Amino acid sequence: MTTYTAPVKDMQFLLHDVLAVSGADIPGYADLDAGFTAAVLDEAGKVASDVLAPLNAVGDREGCVLENGVVRTPTGFKAAFEAMKAGGWTALDCDPDYGGQGLPYLMGTAVGEIFVSANMAFNMYQGLTHGAYSAIRAHGTAEQKATYLPRMVSCDWTGTMNLTEPHCGTDLGLMRTRAEPQADGSYRITGTKIFISAGEHDLAKNIIHLVLAKAPGGGEGTKGISLFIVPKFLVKDDGTLGARNAVSVGKVEDKMGIHGNATCVMNYDGATGWLLGDLHKGMKAMFTMMNEARLGVGLQGYAVAEAAYQNAVGYARDRLQGRDVTGVKNPTGPADPLIVHPDIRRNLMDQKSFVEGARAFTFWAAHLIDRSVRLGDEAAEGLVSLLIPVLKGFQTDKGFEMAVQAQQVWGGHGYIEDNGVSQFVRDARIAQIYEGANGVQALDLVGRKLGADGGKHVMAFFELVKGFIKENEGDDRLRGFLDPLKQASKDCQAAGMFFMQNAMKNPNAALAGSYDFMTMMGHTCLGLMWAKIAKAALAGLDAGGDADFLNAKLATGRYYMARHLPATALHLARIQSGADPVMALPAEAF
Amino acid sequence: MTTYTAPVKDMQFLLHDVLAVSGADIPGYADLDAGFTAAVLDEAGKVASDVLAPLNAVGDREGCVLENGVVRTPTGFKAAFEAMKAGGWTALDCDPDYGGQGLPYLMGTAVGEIFVSANMAFNMYQGLTHGAYSAIRAHGTAEQKATYLPRMVSCDWTGTMNLTEPHCGTDLGLMRTRAEPQADGSYRITGTKIFISAGEHDLAKNIIHLVLAKAPGGGEGTKGISLFIVPKFLVKDDGTLGARNAVSVGKVEDKMGIHGNATCVMNYDGATGWLLGDLHKGMKAMFTMMNEARLGVGLQGYAVAEAAYQNAVGYARDRLQGRDVTGVKNPTGPADPLIVHPDIRRNLMDQKSFVEGARAFTFWAAHLIDRSVRLGDEAAEGLVSLLIPVLKGFQTDKGFEMAVQAQQVWGGHGYIEDNGVSQFVRDARIAQIYEGANGVQALDLVGRKLGADGGKHVMAFFELVKGFIKENEGDDRLRGFLDPLKQASKDCQAAGMFFMQNAMKNPNAALAGSYDFMTMMGHTCLGLMWAKIAKAALAGLDAGGDADFLNAKLATGRYYMARHLPATALHLARIQSGADPVMALPAEAF
Repeated sequence: MTTYTAPVKDMQFLLHDVLAVSGADIPGYADLDAGFTAAVLDEAGKVASDVLAPLNAVGDREGCVLENGVVRTPTGFKAAFEAMKAGGWTALDCDPDYGGQGLPYLMGTAVGEIFVSANMAFNMYQGLTHGAYSAIRAHGTAEQKATYLPRMVSCDWTGTMNLTEPHCGTDLGLMRTRAEPQADGSYRITGTKIFISAGEHDLAKNIIHLVLAKAPGGGEGTKGISLFIVPKFLVKDDGTLGARNAVSVGKVEDKMGIHGNATCVMNYDGATGWLLGDLHKGMKAMFTMMNEARLGVGLQGYAVAEAAYQNAVGYARDRLQGRDVTGVKNPTGPADPLIVHPDIRRNLMDQKSFVEGARAFTFWAAHLIDRSVRLGDEAAEGLVSLLIPVLKGFQTDKGFEMAVQAQQVWGGHGYIEDNGVSQFVRDARIAQIYEGANGVQALDLVGRKLGADGGKHVMAFFELVKGFIKENEGDDRLRGFLDPLKQASKDCQAAGMFFMQNAMKNPNAALAGSYDFMTMMGHTCLGLMWAKIAKAALAGLDAGGDADFLNAKLATGRYYMARHLPATALHLARIQSGADPVMALPAEAF
Repeated sequence: MTTYTAPVKDMQFLLHDVLAVSGADIPGYADLDAGFTAAVLDEAGKVASDVLAPLNAVGDREGCVLENGVVRTPTGFKAAFEAMKAGGWTALDCDPDYGGQGLPYLMGTAVGEIFVSANMAFNMYQGLTHGAYSAIRAHGTAEQKATYLPRMVSCDWTGTMNLTEPHCGTDLGLMRTRAEPQADGSYRITGTKIFISAGEHDLAKNIIHLVLAKAPGGGEGTKGISLFIVPKFLVKDDGTLGARNAVSVGKVEDKMGIHGNATCVMNYDGATGWLLGDLHKGMKAMFTMMNEARLGVGLQGYAVAEAAYQNAVGYARDRLQGRDVTGVKNPTGPADPLIVHPDIRRNLMDQKSFVEGARAFTFWAAHLIDRSVRLGDEAAEGLVSLLIPVLKGFQTDKGFEMAVQAQQVWGGHGYIEDNGVSQFVRDARIAQIYEGANGVQALDLVGRKLGADGGKHVMAFFELVKGFIKENEGDDRLRGFLDPLKQASKDCQAAGMFFMQNAMKNPNAALAGSYDFMTMMGHTCLGLMWAKIAKAALAGLDAGGDADFLNAKLATGRYYMARHLPATALHLARIQSGADPVMALPAEAF
């Protein structure tokens, strides 16, 4: 069975040596001294290792079962959920006005990684609730906030997001769910929603569904869409639960992975709902949550890869096969461990260098969101909005690839279900699909974010890279980091230039290269992170820090720079080959 | 549910326009005129579409069940197996002396692709039998051949290959299964074998296990290994079945995919076996089968991707989401089909250009095996031995990736199990692992095949590429194919040069780059194939052939050359970064 240990030392290094959080001018950050964050992360790590990780395989094996309209979660989930609530983990970065602990989003992100690595499917019950909490907090009336938020912060009530319908996924303009206004100010919601994570389950007393639907008078397409609060049980004025609402679960999906989370078909049969935010502005309300939601999925990408990596390393140390060609390493045993073999080492280095780079990228993005939300920093908001589709798309693609590579270390023992490694692959796969499939992330990046505000955010990103290089080029020890980063950044800029010069004539010239652009930007962001990590590691070495730890950071970073950053040239070549190769074949010739 | 249609026209084009089989000087090829091969492939296509494909999801859902020592295959498998036998499909490329039809291996390969695409797990029962048949035919005594081969050609009896043990996969030298010689010339076989595909099932009257085991006196490691025939039921002198042998199934594995095939733990408790081939030469006997076995797995890589591709195209045509940015394509509908979107087109072109290139590579390799086996052509044998690890490793890696991309087209509908798309991903995954994990293929390529016979086979390959380029460089229409091919071939040669210059000092300099070398060789082989296909397509156009079909080949090939061949530069850069980045981190720092 798989095991998991929270990478607290790595996280501490990122928070304090790379991001220098306690010195940042962001409200709440001053409290984040090293002792405090270590205590929080250690405690989260214990819950993850002792409570959540042992339930990961149980959730995969048992799945969620629908019987007589009730969804039963896997054995142990209910007790673990109560433990999470009792520990205050669900309230960590929530608003103190509603019972939250008010920690920065960055801390919620770090703790979230630990819980996702230990049990992704389980953590979604709380994760979806957090998303619904954020939407109500941003758009709810004072009464709505008072009614729902305290119970959602505590996870006595959980939440869901209802967007997708059978015929409408990415294209929400096709939505058919209707909302009819009633005399009392409520709406009657009618329609079918699919792929609703945590749509129905036995972990909470009430489930607060946020539902996109079309109310009369809003016009065609996405313009007519509004957002509604539709509780499973209606809430009386005194806050106690009233009648069952006309919402029911039609089916629990049988999926490739995340079996522990109940993915439901939800039927709204004239259910009572209340408008959340402005009428016909439902899409806009959803969009304000998007950066956090997509960061959360991008986090799943590398968090599952981290768990897979830990178990691949364990197996590579234990499993004896073959001999080191440069000299026997385990003379008293019948063979050397797998980890001596260069191709196994390559495989593990791919995983390690990706996961640590992605963690840095994600923490940095969370830090930018804190700057944006807590300081109103518009430049940070612009930058993170640009980078979020990169973070979501790139990290979930690579996270899945790395889970596959971790499985490969196990050989046939990774393909059978007994060892829990296949689950990492099957679970990680969904992150490339939901919260906007990765092709949609690429479209968002190239079609919307690149040109936003006259392109100023992408220019700011390249300036930031350039500034870092300039600031540090005097340090020869960083050359192996700065040179590849400079080249990668140049390649990205050349791709952007190609889009500008060609997309006016033919928008497909940009769209055909959008996925490659997202990927090369991802490599460049991780390259920037590794350069920053290297700088911090060198500073740590100069200050007499933990040499083994810091040298390992440098070696891992050099691997990423030498072997992964050069991929930007390939993506640039593809982009510069233009739309013709992609679009030449007529649709009927496929 | 998924559907499958055999790509007979594509196969015919490869056989007759690209490979010109009926003009080849190989015994048996003269019979392969276009009418004959079309009849065979069409008929195989019917069986695949009507009988095998509908059982693919059934096999995945039901799996194989062990009860009281008997393994029950999924509903419908038995009847389908009988239909395959009755149609003579199991005997297609087998020796007429034992009831086979004697067709070339190339035809068996083409038909095999069709069956694997339709139902990979089902086809393994027959595929494993074919492997065991080949081993007995190559190494058996006249009596063994007479006893076993006719029943295995007809698949009245099926076969298995027993190599792996719980503690020993790649490193067969660790093997513990013992063979004790008996006075009557037989051996008593004792040990446990795992991951035995088709190890026990209800499709055949007898199962002929080929088992690697250590007999006394052979020395340590792989040197002491011999190969034994261990039938489930002992065979009497008159050929009828006698007593049950002391071999039993201990478990049917629960796997990520290929649920329809029974992957068994097999216990040999003093089972009666007979030596196959020479004592202590079991490894050599296995190796003679390796080219065909690995080609068969490399075929699975692209054959499953073909099935996934067909279903992705179907979905991309049907599913309406969003509008073509260059102009509405489906004005009477609520949205345009997915296939109008450039990023979907990129995704589908990746799949199409890989599958068609891999099919050409596989057919060419099968043709080389026919040259080697039927003509005794040693150059063909050397070339195909060099390329087999490339074909196996590269095609199963990319085949899996392409199945994942096909699933991505379906979005969330591909992640739920209802639509059968997840199965393609889960099934394709095993091909990267079994028959030598892909890292072992890379090691075989770089550590063994590159230097074999003084490097003459790899030099022959580069000469072959160079010769093709030289022969055709006068045709300007081929420039878009020849230039990238030349560059890719140069990159591969530079990588080989790097290995030569550095591996003497440090073998890890080659081993750390072995996986990249395998991958860049794979791209180069597919590039060569696309250049050959383009040449044939142009010749076809000049001769007034089917313009839509032939132009589609050119467009698909141009895509591969423009967007995938340039990957060789990335792999070369990685290789040239040497062993240091890969090996710098001490094993304890992971």
